[in-house]
Amino acid sequence: MAEDTRPARSLPVLLVLDGDPPPRLGRLTGRVRVRHTDASGLAAELPGADVLLVWDFTSDAVREAWPGPGRRPRWVHAASAGVDRLLCPELVASDTVLTNARGVFDEPIAEYVTGLVFALAKDLPRTLELQRGHVWRHRETTRVAGTRAAVVGAGPIGRAVARSLRAVGVTCAVVGRTARAGVHGAEDLPRLLTRADWVVCAAPLTEATRGMFDARLFGLMQPSAHFVNVGRGQLVDEGALVEAVSRRWIAGAALDVFQEEPLGADSPLWDVPGLLVSPHMSGDTVGWRDRLGAQFVELYELWAAGGTLANVVDKKRGYVPMHD
Amino acid sequence: MAEDTRPARSLPVLLVLDGDPPPRLGRLTGRVRVRHTDASGLAAELPGADVLLVWDFTSDAVREAWPGPGRRPRWVHAASAGVDRLLCPELVASDTVLTNARGVFDEPIAEYVTGLVFALAKDLPRTLELQRGHVWRHRETTRVAGTRAAVVGAGPIGRAVARSLRAVGVTCAVVGRTARAGVHGAEDLPRLLTRADWVVCAAPLTEATRGMFDARLFGLMQPSAHFVNVGRGQLVDEGALVEAVSRRWIAGAALDVFQEEPLGADSPLWDVPGLLVSPHMSGDTVGWRDRLGAQFVELYELWAAGGTLANVVDKKRGYVPMHD
Repeated sequence: MAEDTRPARSLPVLLVLDGDPPPRLGRLTGRVRVRHTDASGLAAELPGADVLLVWDFTSDAVREAWPGPGRRPRWVHAASAGVDRLLCPELVASDTVLTNARGVFDEPIAEYVTGLVFALAKDLPRTLELQRGHVWRHRETTRVAGTRAAVVGAGPIGRAVARSLRAVGVTCAVVGRTARAGVHGAEDLPRLLTRADWVVCAAPLTEATRGMFDARLFGLMQPSAHFVNVGRGQLVDEGALVEAVSRRWIAGAALDVFQEEPLGADSPLWDVPGLLVSPHMSGDTVGWRDRLGAQFVELYELWAAGGTLANVVDKKRGYVPMHD
Repeated sequence: MAEDTRPARSLPVLLVLDGDPPPRLGRLTGRVRVRHTDASGLAAELPGADVLLVWDFTSDAVREAWPGPGRRPRWVHAASAGVDRLLCPELVASDTVLTNARGVFDEPIAEYVTGLVFALAKDLPRTLELQRGHVWRHRETTRVAGTRAAVVGAGPIGRAVARSLRAVGVTCAVVGRTARAGVHGAEDLPRLLTRADWVVCAAPLTEATRGMFDARLFGLMQPSAHFVNVGRGQLVDEGALVEAVSRRWIAGAALDVFQEEPLGADSPLWDVPGLLVSPHMSGDTVGWRDRLGAQFVELYELWAAGGTLANVVDKKRGYVPMHD
């Protein structure tokens, strides 16, 4: 193998925050100098980086280190759909371009939500519980086709969820910030909640959406309704949700995201009857890390060629705007 | 309310075997004399019945009582899709018309199977198990879209299962007794099993299918494949299935039907890791008894008017032939 003889200092510096990125980054060998850092080293490394790849999307390190002194990367890529953990006023105000992993998680998350809808309609958690007790107890379950869903979040994930649910006969309303073709504005949400069988949260976490699912919204839902959160834990007032489920204001809920992750072993959320807890995995189907790596390499090649980056986040809004 | 003054003896006698049929039968008031019997009284009541409604589909009483002496009903209706528990040589040889509940269970069972496919692909049983232990353990799951299913049984239930799975992106092969448009013949089954991710049994139980899922067929499946049975327990060699799952020849199985129902509390099937047990409920969505009752009333009205009955079972084959 021919050694790369170009002077190292002419190559852009790609700083990778934490984690173990996939071998796909090897495709950039000779075209970039890769440095790795963990959260504690980030502040010191940032000034020397041209590009920051935030591989560990569970970290608050960027938001914490960014306001410090020195030069800042011209481009930050988050290997996640949500960028809420990165954004600080200084990053928003800067010229740095922020991109996300738009597209990688859409279909996997849509399948996960559809699977939850089936599992809840068919009373599968109870079936497994009865199996553990060796109890043969026939129950009537509900049809999925013909039910109604309100999908909150009109980005690619929310839209994929709606497509997936519609394919199995569920009538879906997609709710975004503002009304547009095929999307209800936030003003329609209360009315849609009162008649939804499934309320799915797939919204970005922004200052406008933080805590939006509160006691008032849960109080609007039908006693037969289920709530599913695949967005971010901070979109939900967890205490209000626990109360709504415990008091049977709603029939149940499935949470894949939480205000604190990982959820502590002593969290009361694990033990709420009717509440299904999963460890932030809805989008992570086999090969997801490779797909994230391949997506970054593609974006890098655009960037290095001086092209226009895709998946550019509107930093003020906190997500990639849809063009439709 | 005017009393029915017609002489009772001019009305056909409808004998109902066991169970608590839905109020829908009230629509036949004044047009039929309804008698109820349990299994022990069936032999004595059969000679006086014009029509037998087998409401309790879990009973072997018909097969046992039918060969006895005396007149036999001209029409027997089974409130189930499968008629395997009714058929005895004497009923097959007789002029009695046998009908079934074709259509009532198709879509509910298709949804149930689709729900199981999602639950298994998304590792939901393990998620619930980890939740009980308060363990946050991220896993990668698999996509449903792009996988392959072999659906064994080309009747309306098998076809509905295939439609439902295709709607979520699964490539489905439907396997029947003989090849025809859209249906593979039994000779293709081994080849299809070797590449299926999901093997769904929705076949009728006949002498040709009894025990068909044996060690040889399980041995053909991929180690990553799952087996789902919503047909009849007797289609499967349960010992061979337990061995296949326990030794990881296949990834797992979900059984809704069993050789013995209800499954005894001491059955080893409850505790096989990777084996999901549900109590013969796949088709029973809210309102199913009403739909079965309404279907019988419709058929009764056809019969009373001298019309041609629908859903007529080919008693030699043991199911209603498809006309396609």
